[in-house]
Amino acid sequence: MSIKTIQWTNGSAKLIDQTKLPTKLEYIICRDVKTMWYAIQRLSVRGAPAIGVAAAFGVLLGIKKFKGSNRAKFAIFFEDICVYLSTSRPTAVNLFNMLDEMRKVVKENSEVSVDAIKKLLHERAMAIFEEDRQVCRVMGRHGAKLIKNNMTLLTVCNAGALATVDYGTALGVMYAAKEAGRKFKTYACETRPLLQGARLTAWELTREGIDTTLICDNMAATLMKQGRIDMIFAGADRIASNGDTANKIGTYMLAVLAKHHKVPFYIVAPRSTFDLKIKNGSKIPIEERKSDEITHIHGYITAPKGVKVYNPAFDVTPSALITGIVTEDGIIRSPYKESIRKVFMES
Amino acid sequence: MSIKTIQWTNGSAKLIDQTKLPTKLEYIICRDVKTMWYAIQRLSVRGAPAIGVAAAFGVLLGIKKFKGSNRAKFAIFFEDICVYLSTSRPTAVNLFNMLDEMRKVVKENSEVSVDAIKKLLHERAMAIFEEDRQVCRVMGRHGAKLIKNNMTLLTVCNAGALATVDYGTALGVMYAAKEAGRKFKTYACETRPLLQGARLTAWELTREGIDTTLICDNMAATLMKQGRIDMIFAGADRIASNGDTANKIGTYMLAVLAKHHKVPFYIVAPRSTFDLKIKNGSKIPIEERKSDEITHIHGYITAPKGVKVYNPAFDVTPSALITGIVTEDGIIRSPYKESIRKVFMES
Repeated sequence: MSIKTIQWTNGSAKLIDQTKLPTKLEYIICRDVKTMWYAIQRLSVRGAPAIGVAAAFGVLLGIKKFKGSNRAKFAIFFEDICVYLSTSRPTAVNLFNMLDEMRKVVKENSEVSVDAIKKLLHERAMAIFEEDRQVCRVMGRHGAKLIKNNMTLLTVCNAGALATVDYGTALGVMYAAKEAGRKFKTYACETRPLLQGARLTAWELTREGIDTTLICDNMAATLMKQGRIDMIFAGADRIASNGDTANKIGTYMLAVLAKHHKVPFYIVAPRSTFDLKIKNGSKIPIEERKSDEITHIHGYITAPKGVKVYNPAFDVTPSALITGIVTEDGIIRSPYKESIRKVFMES
Repeated sequence: MSIKTIQWTNGSAKLIDQTKLPTKLEYIICRDVKTMWYAIQRLSVRGAPAIGVAAAFGVLLGIKKFKGSNRAKFAIFFEDICVYLSTSRPTAVNLFNMLDEMRKVVKENSEVSVDAIKKLLHERAMAIFEEDRQVCRVMGRHGAKLIKNNMTLLTVCNAGALATVDYGTALGVMYAAKEAGRKFKTYACETRPLLQGARLTAWELTREGIDTTLICDNMAATLMKQGRIDMIFAGADRIASNGDTANKIGTYMLAVLAKHHKVPFYIVAPRSTFDLKIKNGSKIPIEERKSDEITHIHGYITAPKGVKVYNPAFDVTPSALITGIVTEDGIIRSPYKESIRKVFMES
């Protein structure tokens, strides 16, 4: 894989500016936490696992500014940074989970100096980064076993290298299947309104030499009816303790269509995407974004002035519609509540 | 209603150029058949009933060019025009049905002069135009009975005044309900790739004072899950003798979602949209359009260069998923084959 979505280099975070793809591969250098906050908020970096890493790096950028050696003052300064970063986007739980990972470092090392805690936070952020790289590859190998030769797969939004550090969740499964020598084709839903499927997934998959056909979101049903889709893989932004899964808007639609057409429907997501504190999907906060994401496309006006718009960025798929959830611990299946509890208790 | 989609004026056809909406209300004057052919092909005029009227007007533009009084030569000249117009788009059967209506005039009046047959063709085209106006209003009144106060309706693409002469099929039902004093809200699916829902339906409904909210196509499922949609109305491009219905891509998706969420799903279409020669939907030719409709939006590149694209303009909804078909003869319901036969045999 040659895509480096997010890196830590020379004391700064370097991100691919995903709003510029597929026409331009440009980078943003985040030297302060505010630049990172905006990069997350405006979707320059997006995808739940990548947002988690971005948040950890954001903390490092923030604490650079702390001068002095007072641990109590540092703790307040640090917490302010965490709270600030947590306001960048509401749905992907990886953001909150990775901030909590950073908080644990501060909490569990209350006796060390400011310099030492900065170093430990740096190490934890680098570990979060490295864990993402490893975990995606392990998930990929688990999921790849589902893919047989000559299958045709469907995916939505971008759950690829660009949604993680460098490999992907749903697309990671495809990369692992390719590495294992399997031959298959893919369809990518363009994913309105921000076209992550067209701009990012189609870019990434074709770049990696995977046979990819782009469709509009409203064409997936007709492909399934024609028997042209063998399996669906999607990522996740937050998975409740009963397996209900929030992901990019349009995922729930695919899950219902998959059920109707008897197509297996898999979610691929690491443990960091689970939110065990919530019982079911109804508790997941769903981000609603600005209307101009729908009424304008790169400045071109696509709707009458002043029309009302409903623009939820995510939807929730009930676990009853999910064939399995591919994680680094293997594939979790129904009954989800029990299976999820077991995975998290065992480790 | 203040929208005049297509008119015959001073020996020419005057069309709203629907590719310019919603930002500009501009007209195209078609003075020859070629201009009309391109207007249909590039979707300046679209919507099955409007295409039918456009075809009839196209014939009038074509035969203007015939000089002389030889009936046999006229018949050949006339047939060439019909064949030419029939190549503009493949799916909407109104195009072929209205050309057949014009052919009948020529066939049934083989003894009259060229001048006389030109006059008869003119009269038939004007009758087709006027029939569309009347039929839409009658359909509207039949369908309006389904709409109760405080309902929320969903529609896809544009089956409105802009898809007919001046009133609409699916949206005609809404206009009739409004005229009958009913209060309701609507959601419009934007309808990728050409955004007829955003550009045309949202424009038309808000202009007529109907409460309208625009969504992306992949958001309809989540609205249904939330219980926010009471009824769905869509138009049709061709209905087979068993009730299977071709309509804009995304319609089949809505029908499957409607079944899953127990939302009534209605098609609204005049008799001119039925194709009794075909047994079922598998026989309906589905137009596939160019890939750049998906990879470019008004010049803006939304996908990587050279990516494969699948771009069917229509899909087919099996009649088993359709609650009823609203026509000028009332609402046709299952068993469709028998119900449709009965309607067409009775009149």
